[in-house]
Amino acid sequence: MTDGAIGVFDSGIGGLTVYAEIRKRFPRRRILYLGDTARVPYGIKSTHTIIRYSLENASFLMRRGVETIVVACNTSSATALNTLEKQIPVPVIGVIRPGAEAAVRKTRSRRIAVIGTEATVRSNAYLKALRELDRGVKVFSKACPLFVPLVEEGWLDHEVTRRVAEIYLHDLRESRVDTVVLGCTHYPLLKRTIRSVLGGKDEVEIVDSAEAVAEEVCRKVPADNPAERQGTTEFYVTDSADRFRRVAELFLGGLHGAVAEVDLLRD
Amino acid sequence: MTDGAIGVFDSGIGGLTVYAEIRKRFPRRRILYLGDTARVPYGIKSTHTIIRYSLENASFLMRRGVETIVVACNTSSATALNTLEKQIPVPVIGVIRPGAEAAVRKTRSRRIAVIGTEATVRSNAYLKALRELDRGVKVFSKACPLFVPLVEEGWLDHEVTRRVAEIYLHDLRESRVDTVVLGCTHYPLLKRTIRSVLGGKDEVEIVDSAEAVAEEVCRKVPADNPAERQGTTEFYVTDSADRFRRVAELFLGGLHGAVAEVDLLRD
Repeated sequence: MTDGAIGVFDSGIGGLTVYAEIRKRFPRRRILYLGDTARVPYGIKSTHTIIRYSLENASFLMRRGVETIVVACNTSSATALNTLEKQIPVPVIGVIRPGAEAAVRKTRSRRIAVIGTEATVRSNAYLKALRELDRGVKVFSKACPLFVPLVEEGWLDHEVTRRVAEIYLHDLRESRVDTVVLGCTHYPLLKRTIRSVLGGKDEVEIVDSAEAVAEEVCRKVPADNPAERQGTTEFYVTDSADRFRRVAELFLGGLHGAVAEVDLLRD
Repeated sequence: MTDGAIGVFDSGIGGLTVYAEIRKRFPRRRILYLGDTARVPYGIKSTHTIIRYSLENASFLMRRGVETIVVACNTSSATALNTLEKQIPVPVIGVIRPGAEAAVRKTRSRRIAVIGTEATVRSNAYLKALRELDRGVKVFSKACPLFVPLVEEGWLDHEVTRRVAEIYLHDLRESRVDTVVLGCTHYPLLKRTIRSVLGGKDEVEIVDSAEAVAEEVCRKVPADNPAERQGTTEFYVTDSADRFRRVAELFLGGLHGAVAEVDLLRD
C-alpha cells in the first residue's frame, strides 16, 4: 500500500514557494522537501557538478519512498532533468516546462520575458522550452542576481528592492513584452514589487513558475484520497537547519514540520 | 632549496583583495590562490563543515609546496584557525586578528564597529579578538548581507549600493564609533562608498582587513630575495573557472596567471 508521497528538492530554500503551491493542492499528502543547503547555490556550478548533486538529491528522496519527484530548482531543471528522467524510476517534474507552457498560453503579442539567476538565463533553458512550444515567440531574458539576496534579507516590499527592480526590468518594459516568467523560485515573494514596476495585469501577465509547476503536478498525480487525514511534511537539509527555519519564515510564515539535517551520501 | 611560496585560500573570490595586498608586498614571490568556488559560501554552513573544508584547502596548498598559509576568508578564520594551526605544519595566518590589532591601534574613543557577513558577525570572532587585545573596548557589530552580491554585481559606486550602505551603517553612525573594521574580504571594494556614508578620516578610521593581514604576512615571512625574477601566481578553483575569471576582473582588473579547476580530494 503506497501513500503517493511527493518529494520536492531544491538547492536551498527557494523551492519552498513550489512546496507551498503543491501543499495547497494536496492538503492530505505526505510531502518531503529536501534543501541542499550545504551546497547552495547551484547556479554558479558546472554542468557535471549540478547533475551529480541532483542525482544525489533524487536518490535520497527515492530511498524515503516518494512516488513523484519535483525539481523545484531552475538550475537543476535546466541542467539535470534529462538525466534524472532517465535514471530515476518515478515521474520527475521540473519547473521550466510548466512555466514556459503557461507563458505561451497567456501571451497575445508573443513577446515574452524571462527573469532569473545568471545561471538560469545563461542556460537558455526557458528560451529553448518556449521555442519548442511556439517557434515564433520572441524571448527577452534578464538576469537579476540581486533578487535572491534581497528576498533572503527580507526586503520584499523595500524601497531598495523597488529601485533594483526598476533597474533590472527597465529594458523589458522598453521591449514591450506582455508576459514575464518568474524563472526563479525566490521571485514569487517579490511579485508585488515586480508587478508595481511592470504595470497592471492588462499590460503584463506575470507567470509564477511555482504555481505553474504545482498545476503540472495536479495533472500528473492522482488527487488526494479524501479518506486520508491531514498531510505531513518532512523537511530535510544538508546543513544549517537553524538558518533554514529562520529564512523559511519569510516563505511560509513558519514551518509546520520538523527539519532534519542529513548527509546525502550516508543517510 | 625552497622558494618560500605563500598559499592563500578563500571560500571563493573575495580573498583576491588579500592576494592583491600580499602581491604588492611580495612582487617576486610564488603565490598560490585557491578559491573553493564549488562550495562557496561558507558563511551559511555549520562549524564542522567549515573546519573540514578549511583543512582540505590547506592540505591541497601544502601538497603544492607552500611554506605559509593565509586564510583569506573571515568565516574560515573565525571557525577553523585553531584547528589549522594544530594540524598544518607551516605558519597559518588568519584575517581576524590582524584586523582587530589594527583597529585597537587606531581607535582613540575605544568604540569600534565591525561589519561583515551574517556568519562572521554571529561568530563574534572580532568581538573576542578585540576584547583579548583591549578588555575595555566597546564593539558594535552589523551584518551587511547585501554587500557581497552588490560587489559581485559590479555595483561598486552605485546609487543602490550607497542607499544600502546608508541603511546598514545608520546605527553605527548613531553609536559614535571612531573605527570601522571591514570584516569581509569583499568590502574593500566598497571602501569609497562606505567612506562616503561614514564621513571623513577625521571622523572615522576604516580598517581594511586585507591590508592588515598583508602587513602581518610581512612581519612573519622573510622579504623577497631581490635576485629573484618576477613572481608567479597559480590560481586554483574547485568549480567554474570562467566565472572566477570574470568576477576577478572587478577585484584585480584582470588576472595575470592561469586558472585551473581542481578536485581537492584527488588533485
